[in-house]
Amino acid sequence: MSQNVVKELVKRGYTCEKQMYELLDFGAHEDFKEILHHYIKAGGKRVRPALTIIVGQALGAKEEYLLYAAAAIELIHEYSLIIDDIIDRSEKRRNKPTLWKKYGISMALLAALHYRESIHEGARRTNHPLEIANLISETIRVMTEGERLDILFEQAGRDEEYIIQKRYKVVTVDDYMRMIGGKTASLISTACKVGAICADAKNNIVEKLGKFGWNVGLAFQITDDYLDLFAKEEELGKKTGKDILEHKLGNIVVIYALEELSEQEKQKILSILRKEKLTDDDVKDAIELIKKTNASQKAKEKANKLIEEAKKEIEFLEESEEKKLLMALADFVVQRTY
Amino acid sequence: MSQNVVKELVKRGYTCEKQMYELLDFGAHEDFKEILHHYIKAGGKRVRPALTIIVGQALGAKEEYLLYAAAAIELIHEYSLIIDDIIDRSEKRRNKPTLWKKYGISMALLAALHYRESIHEGARRTNHPLEIANLISETIRVMTEGERLDILFEQAGRDEEYIIQKRYKVVTVDDYMRMIGGKTASLISTACKVGAICADAKNNIVEKLGKFGWNVGLAFQITDDYLDLFAKEEELGKKTGKDILEHKLGNIVVIYALEELSEQEKQKILSILRKEKLTDDDVKDAIELIKKTNASQKAKEKANKLIEEAKKEIEFLEESEEKKLLMALADFVVQRTY
Repeated sequence: MSQNVVKELVKRGYTCEKQMYELLDFGAHEDFKEILHHYIKAGGKRVRPALTIIVGQALGAKEEYLLYAAAAIELIHEYSLIIDDIIDRSEKRRNKPTLWKKYGISMALLAALHYRESIHEGARRTNHPLEIANLISETIRVMTEGERLDILFEQAGRDEEYIIQKRYKVVTVDDYMRMIGGKTASLISTACKVGAICADAKNNIVEKLGKFGWNVGLAFQITDDYLDLFAKEEELGKKTGKDILEHKLGNIVVIYALEELSEQEKQKILSILRKEKLTDDDVKDAIELIKKTNASQKAKEKANKLIEEAKKEIEFLEESEEKKLLMALADFVVQRTY
Repeated sequence: MSQNVVKELVKRGYTCEKQMYELLDFGAHEDFKEILHHYIKAGGKRVRPALTIIVGQALGAKEEYLLYAAAAIELIHEYSLIIDDIIDRSEKRRNKPTLWKKYGISMALLAALHYRESIHEGARRTNHPLEIANLISETIRVMTEGERLDILFEQAGRDEEYIIQKRYKVVTVDDYMRMIGGKTASLISTACKVGAICADAKNNIVEKLGKFGWNVGLAFQITDDYLDLFAKEEELGKKTGKDILEHKLGNIVVIYALEELSEQEKQKILSILRKEKLTDDDVKDAIELIKKTNASQKAKEKANKLIEEAKKEIEFLEESEEKKLLMALADFVVQRTY
């Protein structure tokens, strides 16, 4: 079942590939295209455009507009990756060198600027250009704030003086929810809303789809946090504990654990997160302490609750292949093991 | 005369200051505002919003829309400065540390992302939100291409492998015009067009103002190139020959000079531009060679011709204080000595 959902999702997400290239190529110098295509050529899951397309189809949107909207949505995601990879100095993405690593920071920045205008061009080619352009702009602003918080929730690992001084010493569940709302939920919510807007849906319908996406997005990130610490490495396809290694206090399971642990244990975890160089044993120690608490259970419950709420929001949709897919996707988000 | 033009221009440009802060603050976290305000607090000439405002007033635009449009125009300029300063590793701007220098590259990048959305918000608050948003998007795309060419016209001074490989060995006058069209003329042109759009001007009027701004922008950059090499340092307020020092083949006077010089002299200039470390004597030598040619005269003539064409485009305007100001500004652009 879940494998089928993923397959169908990927398939639908990839139907706006042509439009993505078209938007990126629009107004681009021939020599620049190699750089602009680098990330999208390397693959990716295309979950966000899939959501736009599925929602749009569920509500009867015309494909000629919908595919540009979906392409714009994926380009927002890619735009954020270009910038995040520079900020995090990541050297690999999708098994290839990151954009800045391959072409240098200057060209990566110019590519990011160009991406932003390709996104606008996508909105412009839909049947609701201004409404979608406005929504996209608001979304990028919220995503930027999410990324800002994500950085400031880290406890070590950066040498920029301003960040070192302004780091959050304490991250509450509310802080965390604001951060993942921006970082993850906002674009997934907008992906769904844009699909509905392309179908000329009424405001209250657009809002319902938006809430569906928002809750799915939050649940997705919470599950990600859980899997980062507790997944089976052979299923996850990467090492567990990456968030600890990256000094992240912005992981819901860590935050819940700190609420339960003794002062001494809490300080132990914080001191690990604040070490500039972490060993495998440090990561293991932190995870062991977290395992003593109900944190992972609480995180799972929170994600499940969000998914139940998400599903309620779209119950009103007429029965269709698309509705089934959205419901199955919602379940998959919290049931996945990778 | 010219001093009065500058004064009046600056005065008008500063009338949208409140709107600029408003647009930047919109949706921004309290802690982020210090970073967002850094550049605009440090001053600047505000030539571009002044043009929007003066054109708008000449054509009868309502202030409530015009000032948001003008603010958006200035924010585009500031947005490009944030990115250019990172790309050029500049450490000072307006006598203050640059944004990345003061707050780190990560925060400077997030600020740039936020700036872009403040710009869209400015367009949104005008009486022609979609038309202005579309024009702004196209402009930023063209500016990005201008910046890309500007970098690739440099002959040394960067360590990014892609740039070193892709540098232009030869820069023609056509290449140069494309570069400054993007880097300088496009935003000045758009500043004028947006003023006309806010005044509900017809398409052909908007186009005339656009051509005026385009030609003024080109003439401005050509004069800048001339002054960079030949101004009196005490009037310019900085050292001459900065373009040579920065390895720039993208200076019209240099390009014209290369056309006239003997092969040996030409290679001498190119070898200076291609030195990683330049001495004051190298710069002097290059300028001496350029002085042997008619290059500076040709550049001046080109700039003057562009200004004459620019002025013709706006002859149709009814007589007004604003028309006089636009005409005087056009003259000032080529007559200035700093």
